[in-house]
Amino acid sequence: MRRAAGIDVGGTTIKGLRLDASGRRFPGPVPVPTPTDEAALVDAVAALARELGEPRVGVCVAGIVDETRGVALSGSNLPWRDSPLRERLSDAIGAPVALGHDVRCGARAEARWGGHGGVRFLYVNLGTGVSAVTVTDGEPASGPWHGEIGQPLVPDPADPTSLVSIERLASAEAVTRRYADRSGGLPSAGADVVFGRLAQGDPVAAAVVNEAVSALAQCLAFTVAATAPEVIVLAGGMAQAGSALVEPLSGRLESLLGILPRPRLVVSRLGPDAEAMGAAALALSAD
Amino acid sequence: MRRAAGIDVGGTTIKGLRLDASGRRFPGPVPVPTPTDEAALVDAVAALARELGEPRVGVCVAGIVDETRGVALSGSNLPWRDSPLRERLSDAIGAPVALGHDVRCGARAEARWGGHGGVRFLYVNLGTGVSAVTVTDGEPASGPWHGEIGQPLVPDPADPTSLVSIERLASAEAVTRRYADRSGGLPSAGADVVFGRLAQGDPVAAAVVNEAVSALAQCLAFTVAATAPEVIVLAGGMAQAGSALVEPLSGRLESLLGILPRPRLVVSRLGPDAEAMGAAALALSAD
Repeated sequence: MRRAAGIDVGGTTIKGLRLDASGRRFPGPVPVPTPTDEAALVDAVAALARELGEPRVGVCVAGIVDETRGVALSGSNLPWRDSPLRERLSDAIGAPVALGHDVRCGARAEARWGGHGGVRFLYVNLGTGVSAVTVTDGEPASGPWHGEIGQPLVPDPADPTSLVSIERLASAEAVTRRYADRSGGLPSAGADVVFGRLAQGDPVAAAVVNEAVSALAQCLAFTVAATAPEVIVLAGGMAQAGSALVEPLSGRLESLLGILPRPRLVVSRLGPDAEAMGAAALALSAD
Repeated sequence: MRRAAGIDVGGTTIKGLRLDASGRRFPGPVPVPTPTDEAALVDAVAALARELGEPRVGVCVAGIVDETRGVALSGSNLPWRDSPLRERLSDAIGAPVALGHDVRCGARAEARWGGHGGVRFLYVNLGTGVSAVTVTDGEPASGPWHGEIGQPLVPDPADPTSLVSIERLASAEAVTRRYADRSGGLPSAGADVVFGRLAQGDPVAAAVVNEAVSALAQCLAFTVAATAPEVIVLAGGMAQAGSALVEPLSGRLESLLGILPRPRLVVSRLGPDAEAMGAAALALSAD
């Protein structure tokens, strides 16, 4: 059966896997740290591609990506601006490369192997950032700026005179940082640690999660109104919190939707591999 | 040249026009009041269709409409629920009828004759309600609940302990009613009168318009983030306010978009005929 390598270039690590056309995945090597220089990053991806040893390679990156032209317009934590990344990666690897946006790739994988094939769904990534992709008939909406729902500004609940983006309240990274800021320390903890503290009754964790849930509910209410999904699939680091996130978010969202039909809120079944799987799927469908 | 009748069934009046395939419009008779009973309403539309005397008839209605099945699911001010309206109108008129959603029809007309053909735009109707349609490659997004951006609830600026829908703050009807409530009277005035008072320095008019603009800006910031339009076209009664609406709204929206690209904000050039024109266009493209 045809197989492809899928490589997910994140803000902190680069990870890869092999995928066959049925959606079966084969683990790749241990993830490597993401270099902060573009040339070094291209070399690291090429080395990983060689190690995975598949003739087809799909790569997905964070930030703003024009998938049609194969250009990485900008990456919040990644070192490029208007970079012809598809061409650079193809040159370094010595073979054609499919380049995708990480969240759109996750949505692609979710559409094929997540059990939502026939349904119009919103794939919401809660990781370093917050963004969403509408998937209709298995196809994620296209366009580089589409679904950047973490970018609008709202009053900061900790200081209502200043504005803050949804992403800086409700991403996994924001929850981690806001908890560390207020509890005085815990710099290396992830959102899972904050949800762990919440379960133990920590009031700072409860306040931070509550602010994240409120911001997300507000943002999702408008996104649901604009795009009418039947299902919302939560993915990315914070989705690992499961019902500790889904239950309050679902209640809050419900209270803001007025007469609109309620979408079902679920956590992605594919877990942290979804984006690399979607990148491999891009490569598989390229020939 | 082929022509069609376009009939726009609004919450208060039913109006019709004739349209040829080039987009040239020919005025119809004086609008008639919208009956509150469905059978009487169907009769009134059929009488208007006979008067317009074209072999092709397109009808658009407000509320939630399933255009594919020709069913009016609900109409906030209109007397149906899950009504097979396309079939009822065809029976009454004695010819096939194209049935559309009023705002999607307005968006269709705007795509063809508004000068935004090649551009991805958001068509925002500010009339009895608030709703929006994303138009890509000339095609409005489909689905009955798509674009109901006026439905999410936000804290009421006049009483922050209670929630109110965007529509009840920012529709032409809401602006009119909220002004009347606070100024003690003026029940029959429209949003244009409120904007007239605003121009004369009326502080109640200024407060009501300011609350409407804030609510709209918030709602549009999230809709822009989700759907990435290049242009926002304002239509419906309140769009007639022109720069008195566009300037503050554009400034407020700008302040909430963070790093997102700014869409251009314009007023529809087609005016109040847009929806009937789009209904006629549906009929023209049906054969």
